[in-house]
Amino acid sequence: MTNMTDSSDSPGKANKKEESKTLPLKSDFSEWYNELLQVAEIMDVRYPVKGLYVWNPFGFSIRSRVYSIMRELLDNTGHVEAMFPLLIPEHEFMKEAEHIKGFEDEVYWVTHGGTDPLDVKLALRPTSETAIYPMYKLWVRSHSDMPLLIYQIVNTFRYETKHTRPLIRLREITSFKEAHTVHATWDDAAAQVKEATRIYQQFYNRLAVPTIVSKRPDWDKFPGADYTMAVDALMPDGKTLQVGTAHHLGDNFAKTFDITYEDPEGEQVLAHQTCYGVSERCIAALISIHGDNKGLILPPEVAPTQVVIIPILFGKDKAVLSACNNLSDTLKRAGLRVVIDDSDARPGAKYYKWELKGVPIRIEIGPRDLKNNVVVMARRDGDKTNVPNDNVLPEIDRTLKEMHSDLYKSASESLHSRIELCSDLDEVKDYIQSGIARIAWCGERSCGLEMEEIVGAGILGEPEDPALGKGDGTCPICGKPTGIVVLMARTY
Amino acid sequence: MTNMTDSSDSPGKANKKEESKTLPLKSDFSEWYNELLQVAEIMDVRYPVKGLYVWNPFGFSIRSRVYSIMRELLDNTGHVEAMFPLLIPEHEFMKEAEHIKGFEDEVYWVTHGGTDPLDVKLALRPTSETAIYPMYKLWVRSHSDMPLLIYQIVNTFRYETKHTRPLIRLREITSFKEAHTVHATWDDAAAQVKEATRIYQQFYNRLAVPTIVSKRPDWDKFPGADYTMAVDALMPDGKTLQVGTAHHLGDNFAKTFDITYEDPEGEQVLAHQTCYGVSERCIAALISIHGDNKGLILPPEVAPTQVVIIPILFGKDKAVLSACNNLSDTLKRAGLRVVIDDSDARPGAKYYKWELKGVPIRIEIGPRDLKNNVVVMARRDGDKTNVPNDNVLPEIDRTLKEMHSDLYKSASESLHSRIELCSDLDEVKDYIQSGIARIAWCGERSCGLEMEEIVGAGILGEPEDPALGKGDGTCPICGKPTGIVVLMARTY
Repeated sequence: MTNMTDSSDSPGKANKKEESKTLPLKSDFSEWYNELLQVAEIMDVRYPVKGLYVWNPFGFSIRSRVYSIMRELLDNTGHVEAMFPLLIPEHEFMKEAEHIKGFEDEVYWVTHGGTDPLDVKLALRPTSETAIYPMYKLWVRSHSDMPLLIYQIVNTFRYETKHTRPLIRLREITSFKEAHTVHATWDDAAAQVKEATRIYQQFYNRLAVPTIVSKRPDWDKFPGADYTMAVDALMPDGKTLQVGTAHHLGDNFAKTFDITYEDPEGEQVLAHQTCYGVSERCIAALISIHGDNKGLILPPEVAPTQVVIIPILFGKDKAVLSACNNLSDTLKRAGLRVVIDDSDARPGAKYYKWELKGVPIRIEIGPRDLKNNVVVMARRDGDKTNVPNDNVLPEIDRTLKEMHSDLYKSASESLHSRIELCSDLDEVKDYIQSGIARIAWCGERSCGLEMEEIVGAGILGEPEDPALGKGDGTCPICGKPTGIVVLMARTY
Repeated sequence: MTNMTDSSDSPGKANKKEESKTLPLKSDFSEWYNELLQVAEIMDVRYPVKGLYVWNPFGFSIRSRVYSIMRELLDNTGHVEAMFPLLIPEHEFMKEAEHIKGFEDEVYWVTHGGTDPLDVKLALRPTSETAIYPMYKLWVRSHSDMPLLIYQIVNTFRYETKHTRPLIRLREITSFKEAHTVHATWDDAAAQVKEATRIYQQFYNRLAVPTIVSKRPDWDKFPGADYTMAVDALMPDGKTLQVGTAHHLGDNFAKTFDITYEDPEGEQVLAHQTCYGVSERCIAALISIHGDNKGLILPPEVAPTQVVIIPILFGKDKAVLSACNNLSDTLKRAGLRVVIDDSDARPGAKYYKWELKGVPIRIEIGPRDLKNNVVVMARRDGDKTNVPNDNVLPEIDRTLKEMHSDLYKSASESLHSRIELCSDLDEVKDYIQSGIARIAWCGERSCGLEMEEIVGAGILGEPEDPALGKGDGTCPICGKPTGIVVLMARTY
């Protein structure tokens, strides 16, 4: 008998060879990350095309839970889910000049159906503005049609020529959640951009990932947007990962795609739009920020297995097995995701395996525990304790909640300890080796570009949080006094 | 105040123009189908590429519920979900000769990234054998790795040159559920094919859609398979719609992709495989089989809105509105999906709208009902009754269950009344204008092909159900006596 049919275990076979390898230390972040994805069975990187990866069942199960949270947050804020085609005809794709410029080098083109050349080349969507907005032209008629808040979760494609990396820089982004909204006024659209970043921060809180919202400098905004707000997470190696963006599109696309509505006075006027997106980078952040030298640490809400029960057996001890089964039943009835590992492996090998998989709580039950009416509970990121039998369920419940808030707290402290106000660009250059530098900026494009040039890293922009984004200083280039502070960091 | 933020209503704006059109009669099935998809806001067919359609939020919400059922059934039978890339390199795609022959005319090719031609052309998956099996080669090592039961739900592509039709014949199949399994022996794989059709029939039962399982004739099997079992539904126009297939791949692909395992004796032997799939045709069947002249009729389990409450107001009657709100709260607490339509439209217009959308139950509450302590309950496919206030929840619950079984029963009777044993091919030719003909067949390929030629329609194959597939007769071509009866029908 085995209870190990849980999806968290099934692909165990998949990457067998790797399981015997030891994980590099997390201090070698890049190697740790690549190796962990493979051995913990998040992704298989051996697919025979650069930049395309396979979601293992275990990884996919995390993905499903993460995107359920996203759907819940969007559905609860008036969004509805839809789905638009992948293939965009060249003439639609080429309509918006700024937009094309931003994407033309990165677009995959379908040119043939069977052996015949197509009459009209088809782009694989790198993002869906040009697929969706011709429909919005048909859908938006009157001011009462707005706001229109639609999202989809789809695969998108970028012909990346740079170094690719699973979940982070992909040729097939398998899990792009993109929302596209239409509003009567510019101000309504601006409010929606704010709402979008608020939703994204809530989303990342649910993953115990602290984030910073900044307004990207003008030269780094989305092609075709009035402005771009971005959500960044700080990775263990001190580089930031852009894990969400929200763009105010003004009426730029409305002009191109002729999206107008009849205002209350009966006039046809241009609509205003926003779009905002999150990709599977959310899972890259989740894995990277919480994991440790032993492997994954998963926040309980997204862990495919929340509790693993390990019988400590000397021979076949029926009483121990039956205690494990009873506890498993109790926990499952309470809605927890539980696996009993009664395989033949040694306990040490089992601990290793389930720690690698990031299971939040491990329960051990042996003959002595039975006698003492306790179980041993080990928290993935903490200590072992004895828990009296009659208190196991409430204690697990409490511990899972506590673990989430501890993970968030620790990640948040780590983030904030790696943000530093710098007084000149030499300090910035030095500081960004390990974190995010704050530095005064006058707001002039020429100064900003020069700062990036000197430091050799990007300006994330002006953070929304006034505690980070305000402060008196002088621009390091022109020397003008300014109240604006921007963030600079090495970025993925 | 409005409670109409439910996703079932939101895209109401979307296809406004069409709402005023009247739906063609269902007896004009083809027109009824196309029009219904648009006015009920399942799909928007106006996307500017042939064979690509847009899922409206309302349609997408049905899709989500339908595919949840599929996931539940697969997850409960040992399958795990994963995800493989869309793009297949030419050299992998071209490995299996039979398979290529079956698909080469239908494959879309990506030839350019940006403005550069790619070194290796990439196929958009028409189905994923050639994307998945190179990974299975790496994943399958020992007999203990099997059965490997993996599925994914993804978009796939076919360059259809024939007439396309939403949900039925598509260039982008947006919702292809494909399972790919690996087994130690041919017999294990055969048992899995049986299990797959059993799961599919359960799935269709949940949609109240009766189906027939047949073994496709050899010339109509999946390219590269040993044999193909298919699940067919009967559409209102008498044509059958293939709504699921399960293929026994033998060791054909295992040979090509070198998928071997170590058997208990330590020998490397070829694995055996199956694959089976269902596309959004399941939703085409669901819509077509249950709908009527007024629009959709949705089985309660997949209806985005299960109960619509319509206040019958003369002026603003607070007591009526508050009774509607109270009932809505009660029903929602019981887990039902409820909308109150307190818009300014006339009751008749509201009935029309929600009938079009297929909402299973409509509740009306007016001042007189309040006085009498009743509500009026109208079943989408039946009558109006008065229900005493204290019995509304149990009565709704009962009615929803009854409605599901009535829908299934009625569809099943309709299916079986349109299957007829025919004694010669003239009869077949005549009968298939309205349904499925049963006809004896000796089993010889040449006779079968001649039968198809004469009748001008396809042999679905030998049905699994012995009540349909057995019977003494003589082959209409060669005159040999035979115990096999096959089904013939016009097909989509």
